[in-house]
Amino acid sequence: MSLFPTLLSVVTPYPPLVPSVGQAVLHLFCHVPPGPGHVRSGPGPGPAASAAGFDAEVVRHAVKSAQTDGYQVIAAALLGHKADLGLMVLGPDLWRLRAFQTDVQASGAVPVASYVSLTEISEYAAGVPEEMRQARLFPQLPPEGKSAFCFYPMSKRRSAEDNWYSLDFESRKELMMGHGKVGRTFHGRILQVITGSTGLDDFEWGVTLFGVHPDDLKDCVYEMRFDEASARYAEFGPFYTGMVGDLDVVLTALGQGAPGGSA
Amino acid sequence: MSLFPTLLSVVTPYPPLVPSVGQAVLHLFCHVPPGPGHVRSGPGPGPAASAAGFDAEVVRHAVKSAQTDGYQVIAAALLGHKADLGLMVLGPDLWRLRAFQTDVQASGAVPVASYVSLTEISEYAAGVPEEMRQARLFPQLPPEGKSAFCFYPMSKRRSAEDNWYSLDFESRKELMMGHGKVGRTFHGRILQVITGSTGLDDFEWGVTLFGVHPDDLKDCVYEMRFDEASARYAEFGPFYTGMVGDLDVVLTALGQGAPGGSA
Amino acid sequence: MSLFPTLLSVVTPYPPLVPSVGQAVLHLFCHVPPGPGHVRSGPGPGPAASAAGFDAEVVRHAVKSAQTDGYQVIAAALLGHKADLGLMVLGPDLWRLRAFQTDVQASGAVPVASYVSLTEISEYAAGVPEEMRQARLFPQLPPEGKSAFCFYPMSKRRSAEDNWYSLDFESRKELMMGHGKVGRTFHGRILQVITGSTGLDDFEWGVTLFGVHPDDLKDCVYEMRFDEASARYAEFGPFYTGMVGDLDVVLTALGQGAPGGSA
Amino acid sequence: MSLFPTLLSVVTPYPPLVPSVGQAVLHLFCHVPPGPGHVRSGPGPGPAASAAGFDAEVVRHAVKSAQTDGYQVIAAALLGHKADLGLMVLGPDLWRLRAFQTDVQASGAVPVASYVSLTEISEYAAGVPEEMRQARLFPQLPPEGKSAFCFYPMSKRRSAEDNWYSLDFESRKELMMGHGKVGRTFHGRILQVITGSTGLDDFEWGVTLFGVHPDDLKDCVYEMRFDEASARYAEFGPFYTGMVGDLDVVLTALGQGAPGGSA
Amino acid sequence: MSLFPTLLSVVTPYPPLVPSVGQAVLHLFCHVPPGPGHVRSGPGPGPAASAAGFDAEVVRHAVKSAQTDGYQVIAAALLGHKADLGLMVLGPDLWRLRAFQTDVQASGAVPVASYVSLTEISEYAAGVPEEMRQARLFPQLPPEGKSAFCFYPMSKRRSAEDNWYSLDFESRKELMMGHGKVGRTFHGRILQVITGSTGLDDFEWGVTLFGVHPDDLKDCVYEMRFDEASARYAEFGPFYTGMVGDLDVVLTALGQGAPGGSA
Repeated sequence: MSLFPTLLSVVTPYPPLVPSVGQAVLHLFCHVPPGPGHVRSGPGPGPAASAAGFDAEVVRHAVKSAQTDGYQVIAAALLGHKADLGLMVLGPDLWRLRAFQTDVQASGAVPVASYVSLTEISEYAAGVPEEMRQARLFPQLPPEGKSAFCFYPMSKRRSAEDNWYSLDFESRKELMMGHGKVGRTFHGRILQVITGSTGLDDFEWGVTLFGVHPDDLKDCVYEMRFDEASARYAEFGPFYTGMVGDLDVVLTALGQGAPGGSA
Repeated sequence: MSLFPTLLSVVTPYPPLVPSVGQAVLHLFCHVPPGPGHVRSGPGPGPAASAAGFDAEVVRHAVKSAQTDGYQVIAAALLGHKADLGLMVLGPDLWRLRAFQTDVQASGAVPVASYVSLTEISEYAAGVPEEMRQARLFPQLPPEGKSAFCFYPMSKRRSAEDNWYSLDFESRKELMMGHGKVGRTFHGRILQVITGSTGLDDFEWGVTLFGVHPDDLKDCVYEMRFDEASARYAEFGPFYTGMVGDLDVVLTALGQGAPGGSA
Repeated sequence: MSLFPTLLSVVTPYPPLVPSVGQAVLHLFCHVPPGPGHVRSGPGPGPAASAAGFDAEVVRHAVKSAQTDGYQVIAAALLGHKADLGLMVLGPDLWRLRAFQTDVQASGAVPVASYVSLTEISEYAAGVPEEMRQARLFPQLPPEGKSAFCFYPMSKRRSAEDNWYSLDFESRKELMMGHGKVGRTFHGRILQVITGSTGLDDFEWGVTLFGVHPDDLKDCVYEMRFDEASARYAEFGPFYTGMVGDLDVVLTALGQGAPGGSA
Repeated sequence: MSLFPTLLSVVTPYPPLVPSVGQAVLHLFCHVPPGPGHVRSGPGPGPAASAAGFDAEVVRHAVKSAQTDGYQVIAAALLGHKADLGLMVLGPDLWRLRAFQTDVQASGAVPVASYVSLTEISEYAAGVPEEMRQARLFPQLPPEGKSAFCFYPMSKRRSAEDNWYSLDFESRKELMMGHGKVGRTFHGRILQVITGSTGLDDFEWGVTLFGVHPDDLKDCVYEMRFDEASARYAEFGPFYTGMVGDLDVVLTALGQGAPGGSA
Repeated sequence: MSLFPTLLSVVTPYPPLVPSVGQAVLHLFCHVPPGPGHVRSGPGPGPAASAAGFDAEVVRHAVKSAQTDGYQVIAAALLGHKADLGLMVLGPDLWRLRAFQTDVQASGAVPVASYVSLTEISEYAAGVPEEMRQARLFPQLPPEGKSAFCFYPMSKRRSAEDNWYSLDFESRKELMMGHGKVGRTFHGRILQVITGSTGLDDFEWGVTLFGVHPDDLKDCVYEMRFDEASARYAEFGPFYTGMVGDLDVVLTALGQGAPGGSA
């Protein structure tokens, strides 16, 4: 259990909390203060550096520890003011996800957005072949050669005129199949991971896209927006965009120097 | 009265403020700064640790004190950026709930979300047997073996087309009974505590769910969303998700070390 | 003029700014940092105490000074993360209300929500007896024995289907009288103070309720929600809930010790 | 150019940026930390004073400098948590408005809300007499004897049923003339300054009202709300309310002592 | 790669991430703390200066470095509380844009708003001449003599009555051509740069306008609002307004003194 294994075993041998199907997923989007590895314009530490409070080594430790416990961790450098560092962690035990979050926060990174969800087989895909079922419940991430990253949450609309939840199953299934058909035209350019969050977070699904090019993300989401399932029934939350990479590459892009404390 | 009993008795013997039926409930969702019990990457205190301002012992004191006065306190470690520590306290006197909140804030934990509500017998359940009535007005929490936790507030919609408050009592009762029927299919997997907050907080009800598995929470809320009472008439606020546990387990998961100041 | 009378008289004898009818009302909802009067777990000041910056004596001075000038001040300890200390001040001069706010801010309390409004005789109550008229324009607060407190702002809806401001006067008056009838069934349990804020703050009215029991607040607002004036035409802002008390009782409940600096 | 004239002339003689018609207007609403001129309860500086970082003299300098350059500056003490100090500055050059803002921020005042707009002759008033035209493009502010102040931004609605921008010019003109007729009944009690901000700020117009009494503001906005142009077509932003006065009076009301550094 | 070239080359030779067509665009809107170059009212550093943490030289370095790598950087001084410094950077590689952002943040400037988008040829302009195509995919910015700046994001509406994404291509194309016709009447007064962000940021397009006069911005956006494509189908985000200039002019306007550390 990461940074505090002995403490926990002393206090209480609590049982893990795991979904009965699939895996738990935590997206953490963090602000990272400017780091000491950054070159400054004058002699001595600049004004921002002295206020900095981020220890990249603690994040490296947190990620390695989770990976050692069998959890997948995807790292991304994000663009824009919303967040600097994106971390997506997947695995069975919610307590272990929280331990990962606690470890990350101990680095001085500040989670400013997040998403809690579970991998799932949607009710419209109940009969998919076992291989596809495994790929959805236990995705292997990140995909090779697709470093363009975005995440957004979404829900189905419940307005008086366009109420997804008042449609019968067959109508919804048909709409979702048309939706999937558009998505499949992006095969090879986009990997889409949809995780369920009804009852767990503010929207009903989290969508994580991995693309070859950044315009693959744009073209895919744009084209799907004309599909009736999106055009009439989708409500979108905020979008987080960036580049997936090895943790060291991501941290370096955030100005956090080389690994091993040499910064 | 917790940490300042003598002061209060000196100043003024104010009377308690209690609901005429049922109990008062306060949900507090707090940010907790990284604590001193966390292992750091280098010698000496890391950058975040020096800025930390949380004293776990003060929270332990606050909880014990409230329990000594006969109040129930449920603790949860939460996932994501919204909050770290969830505390739900139930009991008769609003002043005592505030004293609990004051004690918690004195620890350095910062309430960043909350909910104020009262246990109640809904008007649609006016005739339930006495045992069920007691279970609703005086729930015994947390339930055994259900450590998956979520909380969300909700209101009934008042749009021109779907206005819950323009329906007559019989229509509303019928909708609520259909709603309850779906809920009962999750018996044993989910315990649902609905508390009333019209006039007290921003939504009309607070919903606290305790589940065996995290996907029980998801499946239950997802399935109910198709029920007409939700599909057409429900408006949901933010969702807070985490794991219920003994306070020491929860604090340890938040990196706040072992009890007794040994961290 | 409170804490800086001589300065003002030296600088400029500005004229007061008063409504031509009734009184000005300022609701201030403040965060109060944990105070030095709170018992800590270890020797010496705890981590939060050292960062505290609240001087309860300054608030006491501000309140006494306003009362000396003939202004009413109601104090409430609030529940939840939105605010700790609620202060409602009523009187003629807007400059004096601002002086009160300046004095309160000088204590280290931080206003995080507020409401600016005026007492008024609504156009639907133009012909009420003089006694009732005086009670509305110059309410005597807080009422005896009603320490359950809530405040919320509200506006009338202006949607295409339900547009209050497109109704004629007679229709509006009839709706308001039905509304008032429901309210009167809570006579003795609830005192309702409605102040006007169109053009002054974000909503059109501020509603301050004083109840015997906290469930009186809930039952009253819940029951009125079925009334057509609310069901179809009301939009509600955030709700602030707490307990009215003597300032010393309120400050003590917020962990700010006994008066006179003895904490 | 205010506090840095020599620097600018050395670096680059950039050209001013002025509207081809009328004047540029910047509303700045600032938080002001408690100042050193405030009387404290004990010996030595109180807890808040030591954290204060506001130099009233810098604001006085900023205002005088802008006035010397021919810009009008209106100062108001505001009520409530939204902001303490309101400054409205009018003049030709956007760079000069920014220099004013930079000067104000150098005082330690923190702009927390603002509005960017231009004076204009609306398309419905194209043919007004020259004197009225000058009064709208170059208003002389503040008006004598009207110290009740409020500001709010607004837009015209574009819903499916009530879409202002789908109406033809004649219909819009008729609605605006009805609107103006209501406004004129407040002549002498209210001065209304409407500035255009489509493409410049989040709403389409900024409305600044100066009233004799605070209830003049309330009565005027309330009455206009029944007018069809408002009832069906107006969307309002937040309202900022306060008292206009000489800068020294305003700063004193904010606890910032007497001018000349004598506080 | 700007401030950390050697580090990156040591760690990992990661491949660039570029759109398959056009360029990546990052708008950064930053708060800049009051700088040391500002004249203060008294001897020694004033209260705000001591808390300042901005090093203008670091921003100059960041901009020069990006320009050296072939990226365009447009700088603007912004008006109002939303942000002080606007930076718009265009170029091929998302990692390089992030390096620019990291460099900017190292100066102490704090990004408080931003936009992530790509240059594009809209589907309605598929057949434009090659010269126009190049101008849209690789715009040369800023345009000469147009220093009035504004940025806003927008999406097309998806309501039940006015759903852009349910229209067929021909209807949309016709609406867009009418829209373009209005825009062309502002030729010479306005340069409009529309970049695509569906799937990348919260709205579907980013609109950057450069105008000769500030009222050109206002008149253009106001006139287009009557066009059906805007009137019925546009949803607008926040507007950021300011003045484009050489970086040194912009920094000086923000009180950050002369270049070369001579302030």
